[in-house]
Amino acid sequence: MKHNCVMKATLGRLPVYLQYLKGLDTNEYPNVSATIIAKALSLGEVQVRKDLSAVSGAGRPKLGYDTLSLIKTLEEVLGQKAVSEAIIVGAGRLGNALLGYNGFGNYGLKIGAAFDISCTDPYTTANGARIFPLNELENYCKSENVKIGIITVPKEAAQDICDRLIGSGVTAIWNFAPCNLCVPDNIILQNENLALSLAHLKLQMDCK
Amino acid sequence: MKHNCVMKATLGRLPVYLQYLKGLDTNEYPNVSATIIAKALSLGEVQVRKDLSAVSGAGRPKLGYDTLSLIKTLEEVLGQKAVSEAIIVGAGRLGNALLGYNGFGNYGLKIGAAFDISCTDPYTTANGARIFPLNELENYCKSENVKIGIITVPKEAAQDICDRLIGSGVTAIWNFAPCNLCVPDNIILQNENLALSLAHLKLQMDCK
Repeated sequence: MKHNCVMKATLGRLPVYLQYLKGLDTNEYPNVSATIIAKALSLGEVQVRKDLSAVSGAGRPKLGYDTLSLIKTLEEVLGQKAVSEAIIVGAGRLGNALLGYNGFGNYGLKIGAAFDISCTDPYTTANGARIFPLNELENYCKSENVKIGIITVPKEAAQDICDRLIGSGVTAIWNFAPCNLCVPDNIILQNENLALSLAHLKLQMDCK
Repeated sequence: MKHNCVMKATLGRLPVYLQYLKGLDTNEYPNVSATIIAKALSLGEVQVRKDLSAVSGAGRPKLGYDTLSLIKTLEEVLGQKAVSEAIIVGAGRLGNALLGYNGFGNYGLKIGAAFDISCTDPYTTANGARIFPLNELENYCKSENVKIGIITVPKEAAQDICDRLIGSGVTAIWNFAPCNLCVPDNIILQNENLALSLAHLKLQMDCK
């Protein structure tokens, strides 16, 4: 299935629906309506209805969607899109945590390898992840056609790594380094500042 | 300074401004205007102007704000609010990555301790973090008046840990387990689903 870019916003919400549905007890909820989903996720009911009908047709009147079928449909839509292997640069604690994080597979995603400046010879970790010397980054990305790069190096090194990734054909960057990165317009940059997330949680709490 | 809850949205954006400003080269930008900040962060100029004037007064006409002074002001506003120590439950790879993550201190935040079911005797890690047995969770939270709990346990255990945290006085939960948690209305819940973030990045890329 080739999704049209018009559906970009919808596509972005599909993993959210999928996560919610997978958390449901299907004995209790053999069927689920757009109303229930919208309420649980604090989304507009019209939006949920529209999103789901775009991938799965309309739900049945009064009953809504068959929960298991809807999960299967969403998994297919999300999983069948071509999986471009992602790689990590920086195999410190955070890089290793991501390498060992369960759940990427649910979204048709795979982190294939990590690169670290302190690595001199390639090795495989206890949980099967491959770690390579940093100077093999460019060759690996080009030969494996890697399109997604995850940056978990210290902020001082982040821009250099970002430039090297882009130079090797990566078009989407997931940046965990707490700094602003400069990327060309055609590159997608998603920042994940964990300190900022915690600060935001704290501020919400202080205001409550 | 006691911030009024009317400023909640503003407060939520202050760490974003601070992060951006700290990434600037102050030799190049001794002054910075709301226009520049708004453009860099894709925010409305009026909003940025309003946010900053709420904490720092108006910028100087033509010049804007003195960059270093504005950084200092934002750090004071964010840092001087009472720091409620945060704790982590689940000292696996992700928990340890968060314990060792630099940058929380910039926001007046501190992760004081971690609790793990596999820990039988308290110990201190190489980087100074304290790990305690899980059965000490309740006593620690109550005696240290912990208000923020970070959940990095497997999803099967997450709801139980969430309930125990809330029962121990925690009012804000930062959940890394990929599952839906049920919390009372007076509890703040922030979900951090890393697989979802990566899936979202991938979807953006596929649509570009």
